[in-house]
Amino acid sequence: MSLQDLAPAYVRSIAPYQPGKPVSELAREMGLNPDHIVKLASNENPLGMGSKARAAIEKELAELARYPDGNGFDLKSKVAKKYNVKTEQIVLGNGSNDVLDLIAHAFLAPGDSAVYSQYAFAVYPLATQAVGAKGIQVNALDYGHDLDAMLAAIEPNTKVVWIANPNNPTGTMARPGDLLEFLQNCPKNVLVVLDEAYTEFFTPEKRPDSIAWLKDFPNLIVVRTFSKAFGLAGLRVGMALTSPEVADIINRVRQPFNVNSLAQAAATAALDDEEFLKETLRVNSEGMAQLTAAFVRLGISYIPSQANFIAFHCGDAAALNLFMLQRGVIIRPLAPYGLTNTLRVSIGLPAENARFIEVLEEALAD
Amino acid sequence: MSLQDLAPAYVRSIAPYQPGKPVSELAREMGLNPDHIVKLASNENPLGMGSKARAAIEKELAELARYPDGNGFDLKSKVAKKYNVKTEQIVLGNGSNDVLDLIAHAFLAPGDSAVYSQYAFAVYPLATQAVGAKGIQVNALDYGHDLDAMLAAIEPNTKVVWIANPNNPTGTMARPGDLLEFLQNCPKNVLVVLDEAYTEFFTPEKRPDSIAWLKDFPNLIVVRTFSKAFGLAGLRVGMALTSPEVADIINRVRQPFNVNSLAQAAATAALDDEEFLKETLRVNSEGMAQLTAAFVRLGISYIPSQANFIAFHCGDAAALNLFMLQRGVIIRPLAPYGLTNTLRVSIGLPAENARFIEVLEEALAD
Repeated sequence: MSLQDLAPAYVRSIAPYQPGKPVSELAREMGLNPDHIVKLASNENPLGMGSKARAAIEKELAELARYPDGNGFDLKSKVAKKYNVKTEQIVLGNGSNDVLDLIAHAFLAPGDSAVYSQYAFAVYPLATQAVGAKGIQVNALDYGHDLDAMLAAIEPNTKVVWIANPNNPTGTMARPGDLLEFLQNCPKNVLVVLDEAYTEFFTPEKRPDSIAWLKDFPNLIVVRTFSKAFGLAGLRVGMALTSPEVADIINRVRQPFNVNSLAQAAATAALDDEEFLKETLRVNSEGMAQLTAAFVRLGISYIPSQANFIAFHCGDAAALNLFMLQRGVIIRPLAPYGLTNTLRVSIGLPAENARFIEVLEEALAD
Repeated sequence: MSLQDLAPAYVRSIAPYQPGKPVSELAREMGLNPDHIVKLASNENPLGMGSKARAAIEKELAELARYPDGNGFDLKSKVAKKYNVKTEQIVLGNGSNDVLDLIAHAFLAPGDSAVYSQYAFAVYPLATQAVGAKGIQVNALDYGHDLDAMLAAIEPNTKVVWIANPNNPTGTMARPGDLLEFLQNCPKNVLVVLDEAYTEFFTPEKRPDSIAWLKDFPNLIVVRTFSKAFGLAGLRVGMALTSPEVADIINRVRQPFNVNSLAQAAATAALDDEEFLKETLRVNSEGMAQLTAAFVRLGISYIPSQANFIAFHCGDAAALNLFMLQRGVIIRPLAPYGLTNTLRVSIGLPAENARFIEVLEEALAD
């Protein structure tokens, strides 16, 4: 007998999430100078973090030997004020990945099922499997969520539907009206997790007013992160906004100190930094134009994206990815999603985008 | 039907862990000046963090918009070198609480059981319950672990034994020879989690060479934290050292970015800071003498402790705790452990200890 047999079969068969390669790892592997590496693999904010977050961190450094506030008083107060919710509606997580895991731990178990879309964020099937629940994958429609099919896929034992909007890794969107209709038609005893990690990148007319929907749908869980537009991926902080009754249950499986002190301080400050958010959206919008123009010029087809990344099609994606890595450009292969001819590039600073385009041209000429 | 009914009964009945009250919370509640509050409630390092950790954090601040290294290369390399283990034997956690939770998620499910001692760290029953496994509580012996009774309590479906050494909140110890004997007699298909969050505070002759035991016992999981002697509670980082096969399984349920970038950098640096550790142990040893001398002088009985805190007995603990809070001294009531006449005080700086003693004397004279 192996000690691994002590774990349930559903744990033993987990294939862990494959994150974007860190700069330091590529530098080690390929013997490259880390300063010359361009990482466009993890949809990070190329501007770094904002000055208000930075100042909040500096102020908090003296207190790091103290445990964080397990109730996240300051951050929750700020979120409640900014989004017009009660603090009892908020669950804080060690990144939004933690929030997704907590939802699975709180509500899913063997014998339950959860619905998600083909090509949706990889953590949904992983979080579902890790607690022994059945995953129901619904075929994508134009690389995005087929909400009607997802509704039809709900089974009597379905407890959770995972929806990403915009979706990662494809950048597709669901229209606000379609989402609202989904909520109206979804059984009231099924939790709808609306993962809005990239919602800040929507142009206003495309962004659903999802938090306002919480009033009518206690089974709705809106998930947000500070890792993308707010530029705090390294610190780990995300949150769920939902009904007080659902938040109460999720909080019971939450580790009391799951969000570190600096993350709480930085996120609180970041919510006030309108200037930084504006600059982030400007850089993203210009980078999107820069990259899509290059794709059009080079005859490369891509999936129109609402977020801070673009998935594009190419022949041998693994070969192109390796070509890029060897030249110090890290992007993301989508083979783990079953998209073997597709790569995803995050939108970076103008010079980073230019370097990606340059290497892409080299590869095409190769 | 309530949405809460969607959660399994074992989740609905969780009573969350009650952490030590943060200074800011007491200041709000009692209208006190936070600068005058003394917190001796969470076994934190009263010196703050070390200068090497601080320098490592400063260096990493520019990179916070990037995701952390999900494989923790630098920290694992340092741990492997310092403790003479392979990196494949290491699991990093968002504090050791995360490590304990990951072990439960990886190996326990409904139908399994886990053994722990009365008065042992509250997270063991919580982590066990949160995954629907049965908790088997074994009566304490002189406030510490009764290892023979724990061995006898193992049932056919027992997958995990939780042991804290020294134990929190009582400060009691198991002798190294007794622990080794326990490992020798424990069934090989039961995981023994040896939680050594406070092991640095042992005098050398009392500290078990537990990591060396990993060679002989692949079912042993040694858990360590950077929150106590290393002074990094606010950043959240802990780890498990075990056999590669067990580490592999635990890593499958680990969130890829569970340890933030600053925690990784600070912990790596802290492992090199021998000076800071030495100073920490000196301050703790002197504070222990200061507090126990006061207890003796005041006729207060206490549980001899090997750690950085002391549990002491008093008549009406709730009343004494409130008396202390009103005067800005935060200590920890042990009623959640069933010790209704006992309070726990962390060892602080000389002036903090003196303030605690002063208020204790006031209370006795009251």
